Amino acid sequence: MNNCMEKSNENIKFIDGGVCAAKGFKAAGINAHIKANSQKNDMAIIYCDTVCNAAALYTQNKVKGAPITITREHLSDGRAQAVIVNSGNANTCNANGIEIAEGACILTAKALNINVNDVIVASTGVIGQPMSLEPFKRCIPLLAEGLSEKGNNDACAAIMTTDTRQKQFAVEFELDGRICHLGGMSKGSGMINPNMATMLAFITTDAAVSSEILYRALNQVNAVTYDMVSVDGDTSTNDTLVIMSSGYAGNDEITEAGGNYDKFVSALYAVMLNFAKETARDGEGASKLIECEVKNAHNKETAKTAALSVINSPLLKAAISAADANWGRVMCALGYSKAEFDVNKVSVNFASEAGCVRVCENGVGCEFSEEEAYKILSEDEVRIVIDLDEGEESAVAWGCDLTYDYVKINAEYRS
Amino acid sequence: MNNCMEKSNENIKFIDGGVCAAKGFKAAGINAHIKANSQKNDMAIIYCDTVCNAAALYTQNKVKGAPITITREHLSDGRAQAVIVNSGNANTCNANGIEIAEGACILTAKALNINVNDVIVASTGVIGQPMSLEPFKRCIPLLAEGLSEKGNNDACAAIMTTDTRQKQFAVEFELDGRICHLGGMSKGSGMINPNMATMLAFITTDAAVSSEILYRALNQVNAVTYDMVSVDGDTSTNDTLVIMSSGYAGNDEITEAGGNYDKFVSALYAVMLNFAKETARDGEGASKLIECEVKNAHNKETAKTAALSVINSPLLKAAISAADANWGRVMCALGYSKAEFDVNKVSVNFASEAGCVRVCENGVGCEFSEEEAYKILSEDEVRIVIDLDEGEESAVAWGCDLTYDYVKINAEYRS
Repeated sequence: MNNCMEKSNENIKFIDGGVCAAKGFKAAGINAHIKANSQKNDMAIIYCDTVCNAAALYTQNKVKGAPITITREHLSDGRAQAVIVNSGNANTCNANGIEIAEGACILTAKALNINVNDVIVASTGVIGQPMSLEPFKRCIPLLAEGLSEKGNNDACAAIMTTDTRQKQFAVEFELDGRICHLGGMSKGSGMINPNMATMLAFITTDAAVSSEILYRALNQVNAVTYDMVSVDGDTSTNDTLVIMSSGYAGNDEITEAGGNYDKFVSALYAVMLNFAKETARDGEGASKLIECEVKNAHNKETAKTAALSVINSPLLKAAISAADANWGRVMCALGYSKAEFDVNKVSVNFASEAGCVRVCENGVGCEFSEEEAYKILSEDEVRIVIDLDEGEESAVAWGCDLTYDYVKINAEYRS
Repeated sequence: MNNCMEKSNENIKFIDGGVCAAKGFKAAGINAHIKANSQKNDMAIIYCDTVCNAAALYTQNKVKGAPITITREHLSDGRAQAVIVNSGNANTCNANGIEIAEGACILTAKALNINVNDVIVASTGVIGQPMSLEPFKRCIPLLAEGLSEKGNNDACAAIMTTDTRQKQFAVEFELDGRICHLGGMSKGSGMINPNMATMLAFITTDAAVSSEILYRALNQVNAVTYDMVSVDGDTSTNDTLVIMSSGYAGNDEITEAGGNYDKFVSALYAVMLNFAKETARDGEGASKLIECEVKNAHNKETAKTAALSVINSPLLKAAISAADANWGRVMCALGYSKAEFDVNKVSVNFASEAGCVRVCENGVGCEFSEEEAYKILSEDEVRIVIDLDEGEESAVAWGCDLTYDYVKINAEYRS
């Protein structure tokens, strides 16, 4: 982790506005009835009045949504001006997927009078359902007309699927004495696993940053935020994380690492860390956010692998849902991870706002008060701190508990 | 898979008797109150009146129960005469784990008047709970006294944890014109994942087989049975699979591959295949057995990896619990597996006794009757057949659906 990400940064101030917080950006959302009986917004446009530097990361699932193919093409020059996004249908494993994704871009370019290669397209929802261009034909002109600097809420509502709340964050920070803004919207609550946490996220900034540096920053911050979130071990087909920079803040364009780059990364980290944690907290059926820190590993990879294995254990997640201090399941999940460590050096603590209790030391259970542990694990945010006592590297992963509701939500998602 | 395992073998007849079906073996089970409020048997002995050739496989979890350390030592000479096993406490991550495991062996050797190095010890239950030798002191003499050729049910009851039914199978087959028997008992229904399916299994035979060949057969059959079962992706700390041969059938001892070895492997496969399927079917909270076959992969490893990824997807498992033909989740799980394949060649069928429906062809959804698919997926045993159309290798994996009850069972397992 970069140092600039580790310390809390006093120069960063959280503000409202989400994806519209940065100068130059407008958004709109609408109910396009992609699912016939949809009661919520399901289509959105984000638009900038100038062509932006842009970069994106995509799912590593071999089965990819058609929108990813098109977005990748359109972003090959590192430039973009608008995003068209829908929920309700992933446009994946469809016979006409490419046609629909291209069609949506063409309609957007036409409505906004911009170059079709500057349109980014993304979809989320059910895989393998037939899809029609009709809702796009009907609604893109309305969205273009409705674009507003206050459209972030409508747009954010449109990308939600099983999300129970909007995920929007924005920050203000300074570069070269200029006030900069960076903000965005994110969705995702099931099929959440590293590479990347399943989600769509759209981040905008008015800080001037080159496309290459946007890509570098996105990778760097993604590795310690979204990539460390897991809800259920399923990695989706449609993950897309986009960043666009209008440059309207007027700072000297960041084109290399160091100096202003670190400040920019701090701002990006502040927003993406919140996205990652909110995504885990809003995991399908979740009642708690679980944070797992693995400390003093002999290398970073071990720390990451171990933390993710613990966060992913269905048995541990079920125990935490009942505030049951079943730390044996932590040891078990450590043991079957590929992480290298010495079992006899491991200690485990459970912590939350209600306190901290050591449950295992040198690989062996400690005496502890079950009552105290129950109180600690009954909080909304629970921390599992594992000390491997082998080196100096650490990693943090986020997940959620496993509840009846996860099953309920996923049993009949298509209907 | 070995040919002798692929075809159903007419020379193999299923019989009763479980772990006592083979000549020379007795068993007993008792409620030793390892958990204070236990209402069921939780301690068992299996005993042979001669020293047996023996072999075992163990969990690949780095955190291992103390009983595994001791059993490994005692089996280093490939010989064993008795098993002492308990449920209710895994004897793992305890300060006095080795002491307890050794103590149980010493007490067993004393009660049976055999060599302590010929005693195998195994435990299953909660990890990291303090454990006392007292129940062993109190109950091992009673178990030794109660040994019976009809003790298989009592013993099998003693190894169950969250299992909802006993898992016992036995077969009769011929070698060199001699009637041979092979049977056993198995437990396991949560924390089930390859390497190995979490479980204890004890198999006995009166066929004469060398220790080396027992080990070879165990590995060969394990690779296509237990290793292809997954309930929740958690691999336990205590998995142990033991086989003991009394040699009382009087065949020429099998000491090399080919000939009688293949016949023996067929018998072992018949029993272990049933254990594997019953373990998946009895997965915690499961309402259905799911079988996933991946066909025409370009190599065996791809087929295995793909089948296990599908069987493990919580999202797919939740969909199947509701008989929802959400085949996109099959594609998604294939995509995030490490398996190499061409998405555009994949076809997917759902099948059961109620019929068969193709839901995806060449990576794209087919038109199919939702009603028919619902009927098919409503059966107790459901098959997902995936054709990769790339080669000639195949693999089968077994799992179960994910239901509310999985969460319920695991939320407060310790209490």
